[in-house]
Amino acid sequence: MKKINIGLLGCGTIGTGVARILIKNRDLIRSRVGADLNLKYVADIDLKTDRGIRFDNGVFISDAYKVVDDPDIDIIIEMIGGDGVARDLILKAIDKGKQVVTANKALLAVHGNAIFKAATEKGVDLAFEAGVGGCMPIIKSLRESLVGNHIKSMAGILNGTCNYILSKSTDDGSSFETVLAEAQKNGYAEADPSLDIEGIDTAHKLAILTSLAYGMEINFKDIYIEGISNIDPMDIDFAGQFGYRIKLLAISKNMGNAIEARVHPTMIPFDNPLSSVGGTLNAVTISGDAIGDMMLYGYGAGMMPAASAVVGDTVDLARNLLTGSRGRVPLLSYQMNNIRKIPVMPVDEIRTYYYFRFAALDRPGVLSKVSGILGDYDISIKSVHQKGRKTKGSVPIVMLTHLAKEADVQKALSEIMNLDVVNAKPILIRIENENQED
Amino acid sequence: MKKINIGLLGCGTIGTGVARILIKNRDLIRSRVGADLNLKYVADIDLKTDRGIRFDNGVFISDAYKVVDDPDIDIIIEMIGGDGVARDLILKAIDKGKQVVTANKALLAVHGNAIFKAATEKGVDLAFEAGVGGCMPIIKSLRESLVGNHIKSMAGILNGTCNYILSKSTDDGSSFETVLAEAQKNGYAEADPSLDIEGIDTAHKLAILTSLAYGMEINFKDIYIEGISNIDPMDIDFAGQFGYRIKLLAISKNMGNAIEARVHPTMIPFDNPLSSVGGTLNAVTISGDAIGDMMLYGYGAGMMPAASAVVGDTVDLARNLLTGSRGRVPLLSYQMNNIRKIPVMPVDEIRTYYYFRFAALDRPGVLSKVSGILGDYDISIKSVHQKGRKTKGSVPIVMLTHLAKEADVQKALSEIMNLDVVNAKPILIRIENENQED
Repeated sequence: MKKINIGLLGCGTIGTGVARILIKNRDLIRSRVGADLNLKYVADIDLKTDRGIRFDNGVFISDAYKVVDDPDIDIIIEMIGGDGVARDLILKAIDKGKQVVTANKALLAVHGNAIFKAATEKGVDLAFEAGVGGCMPIIKSLRESLVGNHIKSMAGILNGTCNYILSKSTDDGSSFETVLAEAQKNGYAEADPSLDIEGIDTAHKLAILTSLAYGMEINFKDIYIEGISNIDPMDIDFAGQFGYRIKLLAISKNMGNAIEARVHPTMIPFDNPLSSVGGTLNAVTISGDAIGDMMLYGYGAGMMPAASAVVGDTVDLARNLLTGSRGRVPLLSYQMNNIRKIPVMPVDEIRTYYYFRFAALDRPGVLSKVSGILGDYDISIKSVHQKGRKTKGSVPIVMLTHLAKEADVQKALSEIMNLDVVNAKPILIRIENENQED
Repeated sequence: MKKINIGLLGCGTIGTGVARILIKNRDLIRSRVGADLNLKYVADIDLKTDRGIRFDNGVFISDAYKVVDDPDIDIIIEMIGGDGVARDLILKAIDKGKQVVTANKALLAVHGNAIFKAATEKGVDLAFEAGVGGCMPIIKSLRESLVGNHIKSMAGILNGTCNYILSKSTDDGSSFETVLAEAQKNGYAEADPSLDIEGIDTAHKLAILTSLAYGMEINFKDIYIEGISNIDPMDIDFAGQFGYRIKLLAISKNMGNAIEARVHPTMIPFDNPLSSVGGTLNAVTISGDAIGDMMLYGYGAGMMPAASAVVGDTVDLARNLLTGSRGRVPLLSYQMNNIRKIPVMPVDEIRTYYYFRFAALDRPGVLSKVSGILGDYDISIKSVHQKGRKTKGSVPIVMLTHLAKEADVQKALSEIMNLDVVNAKPILIRIENENQED
């Protein structure tokens, strides 16, 4: 029986999960692949912490470079994370012609173009399913299953921490700070949660998906990013009254000459299947010219779901090695020479629906001033609601709009903020609603 | 640029969709695959009906055998359906070493073991993603993405016609007959809908998924099948009052020495994501030891979603041809020599939760008689409800049970039916509820 030697770099949470699957389910994998996937090395600087795994002698070592240098190693699994040593090890592995699996979306979102170019030139397969959406086959779907489709748009809940916080706030009305502290206690949020709650992790993933979907270079820096730390339970409550839930969405749309790519808290109607994705779950909807809409839904993070995707990738690369078919699927879904620079549309130019909340003095004429400014900027109001009770001398006025342009909205809101009848910075939450007509 | 020649057999609904994608999105596919997918022949006995496609001269022909006999054809796409000429053409194509794509689940469910054996022996790839769940990558997920998982169970809504009828009945309380007639008018149901509404189509699909998930021979004949034609709006209404929706579910569970595989109307709680899958949509949840739960959701039928899956398969096979990697993924997910005969558990032996409705005389002592018989058979009652009003001299009594064994339930119900205080055959609907404790 043929043998594929695997070197795992980094035995943290996901790395440990990968080792567990490769060891515990070794026979199962062999019965499917028809070859033995042999975990020859697991490298980590911490050899002391008990991972609950019994490695054979000589498998668990501290020197990751020894693994990459070993000519017997066929596939490198990089689970270190970050863009320091991980990047160096990946590039070294590519240079040595080894196949690479990683879940390092932060690295690929920022340095991916160079890394994928290097891999393609060396004829190396670089797989990264676990980087986006954990166990869900979103990368495989875009690169393989949907290959006959022009992708029109995607929307995703791609960060379990944010979804947990928003879902919990929705369920029990707790404030962002309260839920975050609880999430940290339960291990659903990092000690430094900023990558997650500021939307950066979601944007890393969106940058990768957007490249795969439309055949464009990875462009993280032009994605508009807004996190969830300013979401008030009051707005979650009002959203519910209008038939919406608030989710941190990654949105990507093919607008022809440009791509919309943005991450922000978004109101979506209850009948959008993404609205019922709760807890730490992730989900992605993809629209294509043939499929209509499709959704994938599952655990986007966590040791074993992510490890499942890493093992799926590893088997894919092993199968390519066993059949001599490296490069069978282009790394970024399109052949390298067909990948273009398509601009990401500046957020100012997007047109969408909006929810505004103003803290206004409870005084006649306020509404006419506010709506007058909105009208000046061509923002058409769908409905106005005076909500809740007076606090600190002002009452919440909530407005929903028809389609409006972001630049106009920003200008109008900054004028409104300067009105002496408005007490605080207006709240703006964008709405995605396919049922709304204009 | 390399060229792959494709012969499409059958230009009905899905076949037309496939031709459209291959022609309209030819450049797109080329930019992804790096080779030209050339639709050399489309064969159909009906050359007159306008498909809205302009074929080049000589492409659209009536003789399917000419296509299979053409040595230039690399991939055959069989879209004829049925187990007559379609089977013959597939076997002939395999014999000639051509790669085959089909969506013919009825054929594969019944004759698949022999067909897959023939293909494997000839080194031919036979792809069938469109046969189950339309555009959703359920076959690819089982064969590739989830390869590191022991699959524990699956549950699916796999027939759009049934789901449309049940969803519509749920929404507006119409009877099965009314909704079926309407579905036929709208093209959501066939003129002869029996394959769909009797659950046979769903069972065909379940037979295939079950084989892939657990490494067993395809076994359609032992699947327990019950359709939706006896579902009364009254039961849909009562289900809703208990927090359940009724769906036609394909259920498959690995019980160790045997596999549960059954198709029947099933009550599932509102918080099960399958419960909110409406209209003609399909969805499948898969549970594995690493992923936990994952769900795929999308259009399970219809011209373009199914055609998208066919094209995805075609590209997969083209990529195998281009890289010389035929047989890269075993056809039934496990290596042929690892596929076992695992028995399907007789339905009598399953243990699940039940909903019963009895039409009972409105008379003292009825409840004690009914519950006495249930008790005799070890069926423990969770709750009893007298529902609705007296009609035709009897009142509906509804019971929900704790876990019970099907054989006991059947014996108890037939005794209860013979009670002189019970007026009609009792209604039984099985419940899947992961939240219930026993």
